[in-house]
Amino acid sequence: MASSPQAQAPSPGIVFDTLQAYQRSVALRGAIDLDLFTAIAEGNHTLSAIAARIKASEKGTRVLCDYLTMMGFLVKQSGQYSLTPDSAAFLNRQSPAYMGTLANFLMSPHIAEMFEDITGVIRHGGALPSDHGALEPENSMWVEFARSMAPMMKMPSELIAKMFAGSKPIKVLDISAGHGLYGIAFVQHNPSAKVVGVDWGNVLEVAKENARKAGVADRYSTIAGSAFDVDFGAGYDIVLIPNFLHHFDPATNEKLLRKVHAALAPSGMVITPDFIPNEDRISPPRDAMFSMQMLGTPAGDAYTYSELEKMFRNAGFARNEMRELAPVPQRLVVSYK
Amino acid sequence: MASSPQAQAPSPGIVFDTLQAYQRSVALRGAIDLDLFTAIAEGNHTLSAIAARIKASEKGTRVLCDYLTMMGFLVKQSGQYSLTPDSAAFLNRQSPAYMGTLANFLMSPHIAEMFEDITGVIRHGGALPSDHGALEPENSMWVEFARSMAPMMKMPSELIAKMFAGSKPIKVLDISAGHGLYGIAFVQHNPSAKVVGVDWGNVLEVAKENARKAGVADRYSTIAGSAFDVDFGAGYDIVLIPNFLHHFDPATNEKLLRKVHAALAPSGMVITPDFIPNEDRISPPRDAMFSMQMLGTPAGDAYTYSELEKMFRNAGFARNEMRELAPVPQRLVVSYK
Repeated sequence: MASSPQAQAPSPGIVFDTLQAYQRSVALRGAIDLDLFTAIAEGNHTLSAIAARIKASEKGTRVLCDYLTMMGFLVKQSGQYSLTPDSAAFLNRQSPAYMGTLANFLMSPHIAEMFEDITGVIRHGGALPSDHGALEPENSMWVEFARSMAPMMKMPSELIAKMFAGSKPIKVLDISAGHGLYGIAFVQHNPSAKVVGVDWGNVLEVAKENARKAGVADRYSTIAGSAFDVDFGAGYDIVLIPNFLHHFDPATNEKLLRKVHAALAPSGMVITPDFIPNEDRISPPRDAMFSMQMLGTPAGDAYTYSELEKMFRNAGFARNEMRELAPVPQRLVVSYK
Repeated sequence: MASSPQAQAPSPGIVFDTLQAYQRSVALRGAIDLDLFTAIAEGNHTLSAIAARIKASEKGTRVLCDYLTMMGFLVKQSGQYSLTPDSAAFLNRQSPAYMGTLANFLMSPHIAEMFEDITGVIRHGGALPSDHGALEPENSMWVEFARSMAPMMKMPSELIAKMFAGSKPIKVLDISAGHGLYGIAFVQHNPSAKVVGVDWGNVLEVAKENARKAGVADRYSTIAGSAFDVDFGAGYDIVLIPNFLHHFDPATNEKLLRKVHAALAPSGMVITPDFIPNEDRISPPRDAMFSMQMLGTPAGDAYTYSELEKMFRNAGFARNEMRELAPVPQRLVVSYK
């Protein structure tokens, strides 16, 4: 799909392609569900071998493999298919970085429902009043999020812990812990760190499971409930707020940030990994496009750095800075008490 | 989205983007439904002016306009939005080439249903036995097709008529006429031409309406029913088979082509505009990707030239050739009796 205006004569191709872009999502999801990438990773490269391994018709396998090749997920040479570096790393189920589970959340009915009445949502400027379900207590959507999106959060959580975990004894609060990976990375990188995860009780089960798997359950504790209501305690060196502020309007965020400010030690800092568009709101595309997803919530948005900076400043923070996480999507605001 | 394997380190971006590609279709559909492109064409360039004109919130309008800019449908400069040459030509409702109606068919429940059980369809190699509805007599899907897709067929039908209509008295048969544009272009370009359109009775109402609008109703007649069953008559100079053979398996197509062969005058020819991938089946992308759409039918496919050539040869045709229609999507097989 084009990303800039074109010099040549108008062509209807972009209209035709974009109205069918949904088939790309569906085709990739089908390939993940059929474990096609794993089949190829195991050494099946001909249509007949791949079809036999995924228990599918040769015709369906051929159409799917060609489609995946055109989307950039496979290479086709002399009629044989192989994985690209991306699909080998992220779509082969045997790969440690496997993220086929993303389809479960990104294409879940929860998310799709947000877009069912897109004109209504655009008119209203957010989720219609009848659809505020995502923010209801204990919504199972966030258990699905915690289970499905964890593989995508592994890289950024590692990068952030490397930047900030240090080696001194520290107390870390992880707000909207979800899968828990952001906090868990801190206790893995720093043997003297302790982490408290906050989230709904049903979601925290996933975080505790991940802490046990990582062998750090003894330094991982939890507080169940709404981050707006529970008592955080005090004296935290670091508060993590990953992918949370984008759900709420600025006034609501400032209320939370004042509470976070009070829970911080005097030299403490807040780390906020999120989708943060540039001030032009059209770059980088992955961060900036996230605003559409958030338009499906009652009052959320993909906030620019200057918008986040203002919320933190209004909540009493002395200083903010932005850090890049490239090549990982998302960026980081660091806010000092 | 990438279209070739990448040299740099693996990045999960392509997985994340593709699983959300469906939001691109939804966003464009929303913009079409809200007539946002027409609003901008009328001279509204600021968010507040556009929002007022489309009766939407400023926030929803902002998110949508930025998203459309990133997809290449708008240009954003100093916070103001304008149309690209493509959106001005094809998405402004006042433009003679307006094709916003494509959304009605390409994103219709009929098409979406095909992909609901994508793994089942891939396993089976076509529509599941329970879902053969598209080919049932008088299916309203084809009325929707005829009404919605006509704007996209205007350019190719003009190009084809220019190539083949000539000025001698000719008799043309248009099989699966749909909107009727392919045949109508012949009688518009050649005042001595007469056309007979074949399609289901409910669909032919759209073709007859278009023939009346074009002022050629007196040279446009119809035969209602299945192309496999009705009596075509005989002595045709040209038979058009636009976008029809892709619905059926080769044996079924050969049966139809033998019937067409018999209906042709000795010096007659068949013209078949269709999505025709190269022999590698992964180029050009628009033609080759059509195979996924056809996988949703019981036995259809996007046939290569060599596959179509074989069907025509088996049905008794002496000679075939392929013609390009670029920049219009689709290509043309010309088959001589």
